[in-house]
Amino acid sequence: MMNKEETLVVFSGGQDSTTCLFWAIKHFKKVYALSFLYGQKHQKEVEYARAIAQEAGVEFEAKDVSFIAELGRNSLTDISIQMDEEQPVGSFPNTFVPGRNLFFLSVAAVYAREKGINHLVTGVSQTDFSGYPDCRDGFIKSLNVTLNLAMDEQFVIHTPLMWIDKAQTWALADELGVLQLVRTKTLTCYNGEMGDGCGHCPACKLRREGLETYLATKK
Amino acid sequence: MMNKEETLVVFSGGQDSTTCLFWAIKHFKKVYALSFLYGQKHQKEVEYARAIAQEAGVEFEAKDVSFIAELGRNSLTDISIQMDEEQPVGSFPNTFVPGRNLFFLSVAAVYAREKGINHLVTGVSQTDFSGYPDCRDGFIKSLNVTLNLAMDEQFVIHTPLMWIDKAQTWALADELGVLQLVRTKTLTCYNGEMGDGCGHCPACKLRREGLETYLATKK
Repeated sequence: MMNKEETLVVFSGGQDSTTCLFWAIKHFKKVYALSFLYGQKHQKEVEYARAIAQEAGVEFEAKDVSFIAELGRNSLTDISIQMDEEQPVGSFPNTFVPGRNLFFLSVAAVYAREKGINHLVTGVSQTDFSGYPDCRDGFIKSLNVTLNLAMDEQFVIHTPLMWIDKAQTWALADELGVLQLVRTKTLTCYNGEMGDGCGHCPACKLRREGLETYLATKK
Repeated sequence: MMNKEETLVVFSGGQDSTTCLFWAIKHFKKVYALSFLYGQKHQKEVEYARAIAQEAGVEFEAKDVSFIAELGRNSLTDISIQMDEEQPVGSFPNTFVPGRNLFFLSVAAVYAREKGINHLVTGVSQTDFSGYPDCRDGFIKSLNVTLNLAMDEQFVIHTPLMWIDKAQTWALADELGVLQLVRTKTLTCYNGEMGDGCGHCPACKLRREGLETYLATKK
């Protein structure tokens, strides 16, 4: 049934959302990719995202939502704050941008509504959620209901990665035929290095460990 | 209990949010007022709001959220569209800004969190909701849960006007000792005229009929 419909993927050009983009291409008739500029330190990630979308043959748009960065102090958008390398005990890492997924998905929903699209795809995962509350399943489902009530619509938020870990995400990319593309052309690294990245930030560690686990099981 | 706590009022300087501002002053230890610039045709409403906040002795801030206006076409922010004078049958009036209260309250919550405030006040009313889905009680409650899950917080959204009509809102203003202030210094009119307004837009009609009803019962 979904194959007859259109969908909008919240797309950063990282490992997770790129895997979701190809998942969406497999399951929907037409796919749109939406990226966000929000004052992140590595704005070039939007250009990497655009290149991947072009290679995948999907319509791409980048929206400026830089108001998000002004709302709360965090190390992803404020260059005066050093990023946490380890998660502080009992609190979020300072890479947490308060309400980020709330705003991304809300903007995506309004944008999708304008195009007559009611399917949304996001790469959030509760399994590897790194302490961010806005990656949890309960939040996404609550937001789905809130968006429907806000606009009297019937949005459906899809989260193909919600219950799988990084190794399984690599397996999914492989199944979709894009393991090499995801490995070499996506940006996950907090220090802005494409592909295998800097190797020592939390995002690189998680990504590498997942890949090693997946490749070990594949042998 | 609330008298020991602080609250943030989503404040436009209109009849409803001004009444809520004085309701909040009565019930909380300290009150903050937050206004939004979102490309509305009557930007001076923010200056009226600032003047009322000053008179009430509450801290005031205006945030630019003009990204909202770019998301969906509507007659409140797009000067090329004539505002509906009557509500179209079976649809929203074209003054509906998709997701407006979703974004206002989400931004307010992030802002409140930064200040250590967890009480939010909004003047939405299901009784006079004019067909806007984002003024309904179910939406506000769903959003409250969503905000709590998004940021792992315990926000409480107060809606003192949810179940009262315009006449009862005038009665509340009178009870709070601000009937004259609300009548003469607030801006509700879609055509940007303060106090009693243009008299013929839907907002003016609703406001006037409520006032007449209230004054008739008072005699």
